[in-house]
Amino acid sequence: MPEEILNDISHRRFNPLRGSWLLVSPHRTKRPWQGQQESPSKITLPDYDPTCYLCPGNKRAQGDSNPKYENTYVFVNDYSAVKEEQSEYKQESDPKDVSNLLLRVEPVTGKCYVITFAPSHNLTLADLSPKEILPVVQTWTEIYTAHLSPKSPLAAVSQPTTLAPTGLSMTAPNAQYKWMQIFENKGAAMGCSNPHPHGQIWTTTGLPEEPALELEQLQKYRREHGGKSMLEDYANLEMEKKERIVFQNATFLVVCPWWATWPFEVMIMSKKHKRALVDLNDEEKLQFAEAIAEVTRRYDNLFETSFPYSSGIHQAPLEGTDDECEASHFHMHFYPPLLRSATVRKFLVGYELMAEPQRDITPEQAAARLRDCGGELYRKLLK
Amino acid sequence: MPEEILNDISHRRFNPLRGSWLLVSPHRTKRPWQGQQESPSKITLPDYDPTCYLCPGNKRAQGDSNPKYENTYVFVNDYSAVKEEQSEYKQESDPKDVSNLLLRVEPVTGKCYVITFAPSHNLTLADLSPKEILPVVQTWTEIYTAHLSPKSPLAAVSQPTTLAPTGLSMTAPNAQYKWMQIFENKGAAMGCSNPHPHGQIWTTTGLPEEPALELEQLQKYRREHGGKSMLEDYANLEMEKKERIVFQNATFLVVCPWWATWPFEVMIMSKKHKRALVDLNDEEKLQFAEAIAEVTRRYDNLFETSFPYSSGIHQAPLEGTDDECEASHFHMHFYPPLLRSATVRKFLVGYELMAEPQRDITPEQAAARLRDCGGELYRKLLK
Ligand SMILES: O=P(O)(O)O[C@H]1O[C@H](CO)[C@@H](O)[C@H](O)[C@H]1O
Ligand SMILES: O=P(O)(O)O[C@H]1O[C@H](CO)[C@@H](O)[C@H](O)[C@H]1O
Repeated sequence: MPEEILNDISHRRFNPLRGSWLLVSPHRTKRPWQGQQESPSKITLPDYDPTCYLCPGNKRAQGDSNPKYENTYVFVNDYSAVKEEQSEYKQESDPKDVSNLLLRVEPVTGKCYVITFAPSHNLTLADLSPKEILPVVQTWTEIYTAHLSPKSPLAAVSQPTTLAPTGLSMTAPNAQYKWMQIFENKGAAMGCSNPHPHGQIWTTTGLPEEPALELEQLQKYRREHGGKSMLEDYANLEMEKKERIVFQNATFLVVCPWWATWPFEVMIMSKKHKRALVDLNDEEKLQFAEAIAEVTRRYDNLFETSFPYSSGIHQAPLEGTDDECEASHFHMHFYPPLLRSATVRKFLVGYELMAEPQRDITPEQAAARLRDCGGELYRKLLK
Repeated sequence: MPEEILNDISHRRFNPLRGSWLLVSPHRTKRPWQGQQESPSKITLPDYDPTCYLCPGNKRAQGDSNPKYENTYVFVNDYSAVKEEQSEYKQESDPKDVSNLLLRVEPVTGKCYVITFAPSHNLTLADLSPKEILPVVQTWTEIYTAHLSPKSPLAAVSQPTTLAPTGLSMTAPNAQYKWMQIFENKGAAMGCSNPHPHGQIWTTTGLPEEPALELEQLQKYRREHGGKSMLEDYANLEMEKKERIVFQNATFLVVCPWWATWPFEVMIMSKKHKRALVDLNDEEKLQFAEAIAEVTRRYDNLFETSFPYSSGIHQAPLEGTDDECEASHFHMHFYPPLLRSATVRKFLVGYELMAEPQRDITPEQAAARLRDCGGELYRKLLK
């Protein structure tokens, strides 16, 4: 158990991965809620929806058609936030001109993909077994590999595999991009506009803010702790303390991190130092798939609803220095908004936006609840 | 006009106030929206609601009763996130123990207030005239003053006033707090659970993340630019460029900042260097009230709806070094989520949380639209 007193007093916890603080107010859950209610998706969806732009065989917005894919399918986002080709631009820079500092800008190019997780319109990751999630992990790895800089220390890594190829076909990127962000928005509450199970992959020329923050902290830790990985040390510490563990297998540890911001935030991290997807062998990929299955199934079981969240993978940059790549530690974040039930969420608003993130229940309480709701998916038991 | 090309290409803009970047994808507004729809509050509210814990004369959750107040009323939040009294706590610290770094914690005490903006249950700031908002500004100033450290360089400031006192009665805080965050969550979409016009004020022992980030950047700028205020320089630059201005009067400038994250984000800042509310004289307070009236009325006019937002004031800390107080520049942020209509919002989710904030329309486009919807409040014209 953590010190009992932390269940009673307001305190700040430090996030060593971002180098930032958050406010924890454990007593605040007693507050009655009279605000907005989320509407849980109750409608039963069909296995195939002829109007869905992600279902196999269907036509998409810009006229392309999806193949009759079997597990995953990847295509370039029809409404990409960044593109490979755009007009050239360079800000005129006169270092004496203060407007270069106050109105600073740089162009970004990149490539955005959509990846479906399954051909069935009405499934989610929570409905899939680890074996069924494995092709998703494989596809992520193949895309990551296809974008990796030939100069990266990870480019030479190639784990022996006995898995059947996923059949990914993609045109090579036009340029070497710096960062690949793999993520999923699940549920209407997290801005997802199509229930067909899918995620996104955005690659960009620049290193975005969040991975840049993490990389800085990871590199600093490595420098100051004789080359050790912060998250390997953290995983060992959590395995000793136990109170924030949700699930584990041989390769991965799932915790509600000490510094969790979202009510039921979890992090999947490799127990030993792995830099990126390409460092995982077949068995480890399957264990990663199992960790994802365990998290998403527990989420759905918690409030007996299709649990909304945003998730994302942080790993080594596509193009990075040796030190950047070595300091990177493969992990996946899940940020889910629900707090008390299928309809009552936590709003990260006024104080959180203007001053500092604030949470109500403690990460230890959240972890205990998620530990307790493993087992069969509630929907299957209802049938 | 800013360089036309920035309306077409994806680019990153730098926020010098936070020292962070965001991604701008102007072409992305063409994307069709099939996701969650917000429900605009259509229900006509009564002027007085006997069940509202903020209406004059009513009983509150913990048994206290509100007086029959005339304009504003302040009380200690019945569900405060931080409290003045709690058990003492100090983390045992053995600097050799890595758990002190990875499981770092510090206690926080403080005081949380609720402030009503008007006695009428069915009004919002957008319905009030500058003269009617003035008591809110006065009350904020009185609370700020009551919590200011006697050692602060601002403690000696006392602007001559001819305004009638607001009648604020409050017990003095038990301790000297470091920071006061004045903020408002407006609308169900921003986690507000009671439509009665009100805001909150949280004071804490620590300096929270956001003001700490800003203060660092403001101090750095002051050091590197011969003691000048970053936001005074920025205000001058925006007055020259014009394209991001929404409104101005003699004392305040309202812009969609170059680095705006939320679709119609605006910032009210003093044109000349002011450190905090206490630096404003009567006339300047009225002009601040006018700026707030102009922003909130334009917001409501934009999509003809009660526009949700979170807003907050950043100013000098309650207890700060001379340099911290001098570098502080009084300003107010408004972060509103709506993007295209009263029902379609921008979700800051997957990519935004895992990688970097991302916006669709440019701040220049947002400013042009807000400039164009001044004038009478649409609801008054409908009557
Ligand atoms: O204090 P309230 O209005 O009950 O609650 C609202 O504002 C708080 C401060 O931004 C948030 O922590 C809550 O999530 C939100 O619902
Ligand atoms: O790309 P989508 O699914 O259409 O859109 C969703 O994810 C994006 C990336 O996180 C966000 O920018 C959008 O606000 C959100 O609605």
